[in-house]
Amino acid sequence: MSTRSAGAPFIAPRGLSGVIVTDTRLGDVRGREGFYHYRQYSAVELARTRSFEDVWHLMFYGELPDAAQASDFASRTAALRPLPEDIRDALPAIARSGLVAGPLAGLRTALSQVGASKGFRPLYDIDGDRREADALVACAIVPTLLTALHRLGLGLEPVEPRADLPYAANYLYMLTGEEPEPAKARAIEQYLISTIDHGFNASTFTARTIASTGADFAACLVGAIGALSGPLHGGAPSRALDTLDAIGTPDRIDAWIRERVLAGDRIMGFGHPVYRTEDPRSRMLRGIAEGFGGELVDFAMEVERRVIEILAELKPGRELHTNVEFYAGVVMELCGLSRDMFTPTFASGRVVGWSANVLEQAEDSKIIRPAARYVGVQPPVAVPLPAAG
Amino acid sequence: MSTRSAGAPFIAPRGLSGVIVTDTRLGDVRGREGFYHYRQYSAVELARTRSFEDVWHLMFYGELPDAAQASDFASRTAALRPLPEDIRDALPAIARSGLVAGPLAGLRTALSQVGASKGFRPLYDIDGDRREADALVACAIVPTLLTALHRLGLGLEPVEPRADLPYAANYLYMLTGEEPEPAKARAIEQYLISTIDHGFNASTFTARTIASTGADFAACLVGAIGALSGPLHGGAPSRALDTLDAIGTPDRIDAWIRERVLAGDRIMGFGHPVYRTEDPRSRMLRGIAEGFGGELVDFAMEVERRVIEILAELKPGRELHTNVEFYAGVVMELCGLSRDMFTPTFASGRVVGWSANVLEQAEDSKIIRPAARYVGVQPPVAVPLPAAG
Repeated sequence: MSTRSAGAPFIAPRGLSGVIVTDTRLGDVRGREGFYHYRQYSAVELARTRSFEDVWHLMFYGELPDAAQASDFASRTAALRPLPEDIRDALPAIARSGLVAGPLAGLRTALSQVGASKGFRPLYDIDGDRREADALVACAIVPTLLTALHRLGLGLEPVEPRADLPYAANYLYMLTGEEPEPAKARAIEQYLISTIDHGFNASTFTARTIASTGADFAACLVGAIGALSGPLHGGAPSRALDTLDAIGTPDRIDAWIRERVLAGDRIMGFGHPVYRTEDPRSRMLRGIAEGFGGELVDFAMEVERRVIEILAELKPGRELHTNVEFYAGVVMELCGLSRDMFTPTFASGRVVGWSANVLEQAEDSKIIRPAARYVGVQPPVAVPLPAAG
Repeated sequence: MSTRSAGAPFIAPRGLSGVIVTDTRLGDVRGREGFYHYRQYSAVELARTRSFEDVWHLMFYGELPDAAQASDFASRTAALRPLPEDIRDALPAIARSGLVAGPLAGLRTALSQVGASKGFRPLYDIDGDRREADALVACAIVPTLLTALHRLGLGLEPVEPRADLPYAANYLYMLTGEEPEPAKARAIEQYLISTIDHGFNASTFTARTIASTGADFAACLVGAIGALSGPLHGGAPSRALDTLDAIGTPDRIDAWIRERVLAGDRIMGFGHPVYRTEDPRSRMLRGIAEGFGGELVDFAMEVERRVIEILAELKPGRELHTNVEFYAGVVMELCGLSRDMFTPTFASGRVVGWSANVLEQAEDSKIIRPAARYVGVQPPVAVPLPAAG
């Protein structure tokens, strides 16, 4: 690693690749080891053993809650789930436009309005307690907004949140109006925990850049949602299921994959820019899928096995593994989520990671403001102005 | 300057200061020369001689329009000013929450909704023509949104845009319901032109980061609006006027300034991170203010003169000049804008600069994704996962 002092311009690699813009205590991804962690804990172990609320607490406060803290935090956040009245009135129109623009565009508008309606204040005008309060409101209300927008888009009434259900169970309850089977609620909870944070991706960086100006929590999160909605960001778990659909039946796996690989196409659900091993999230989610079992799971595992074998044959040396999308899509399908809710479900957990990043960024007072290099036609004469008279 | 290849991590200066993240053909700021330009033209010269629409055309297409192009572009953009019906219905609620959260929070929500309602598509799913069409809609509608939200906040009905008025005159018309005096419309037009773009500030960088994920135009602009709303970004032209109010009368200038300087306070409206000379925007705006004349202008010029003299005496060697805020506030006050509309007015011109940056970024296909360095407690054991079986 090299450091340098400010001053002379430095031309960064494209996309700021490998450029360290901040220190963080929130977590890290170790691509070579196939390992990632939140604070000092393995993220996969957290997903296996803790509740979503416990990990949310860990991300915000740096430590896992004890039993009393866990219970207190769970009820405090559950109390923040209901929609304010003015947002409730605005949602039908937002849902209508979201039918074309997608659920993340609806969430972007609705959360922006929640921030204004709840009186979120600029990060540098308030103290840490108030920042945290705004963050809790935002994280608690995102599932309510997403499920209400989804139901309104289907012509259904939103379902009121229930404070007696844990985060993930309440999410599924608000989607369907029925209390979910415990195994399904737990599967979604583990998925949500495993995707709260994952290194310094484009949406997290966007949230931190906006936070560095001192803007309010809604401004930061709305920017992150916008970045997440971009097709180059993180992909969409529904695409991997679309692949399974396109293949159709086990006997068609080989022909389909060979054709794609030989055409040079990317196979959705495989490969990751950071992991050189299996994606640890994929491994965990496959385990969850196996727990459910059934035709889809058998088929997905067969496709995984054959893709890896065929790639090893056709592209030797290029070790490729399933990424988080592949089994995330399978698990969400098994839990009854419709495909248009896959990315919003991801967003509902990730908002906790973005928020933890915003809270950390707010401790720094330096605006993030890089430079650009002008490469166009120079003005014929740059006339320096005379001194003020 | 130095370049480096991607790969090894590089620890950037705080806030990415001086780190060049992209090439641009949109313009540049030459801080030492007190000069800035859009494309190959002096921005101040453009403000002196051209219409807002002409410079908008220059930013989007790289060239100033001829007479036929100018007329065509002006009528095409004027036709995009009216509000869609669903946005009209949503604005009263947005305006109510904006009373607390400020007009930029209202614009953030309203523009997000416009993007969804107008069916803006991800940048990488559409061609350049369609991107440009979305950008034109966004830029044309921002003044209508801002003025409607402002009037609704005051309990007044929004004023419909008029297609027969140029951009700036229509802006003032929608604010007041009355056709503005030509000198005032022209003064605001020159201010708007002069602030369309100004180097790679935090909101412009935010817009480009979101654009680099391929997200839609509304996502990019809503992120930029969020960044602009941060107190560390660009300041607020109303603060300079607040300074004039605080001083009150000419006889109190010296005592007030000395007290502030000796206490180490920053004097709002003075000093700029890039310019080492007078801010060329300030120089132009002072000229406009002098054209109006009157007590406020005389007082502002006297304050400017004394601040510079006293700073030269108390802090020798630290040459400080007025920045764009100082006379921008004076000019907007003279043109009858209320102070809470100063920053929104700035935003209404700047959205053209953000949009030109998004269009330029969309030509690149590399996501902006830097890195962070984990400095927290290391997990006790990082157990590498065995290979997938």
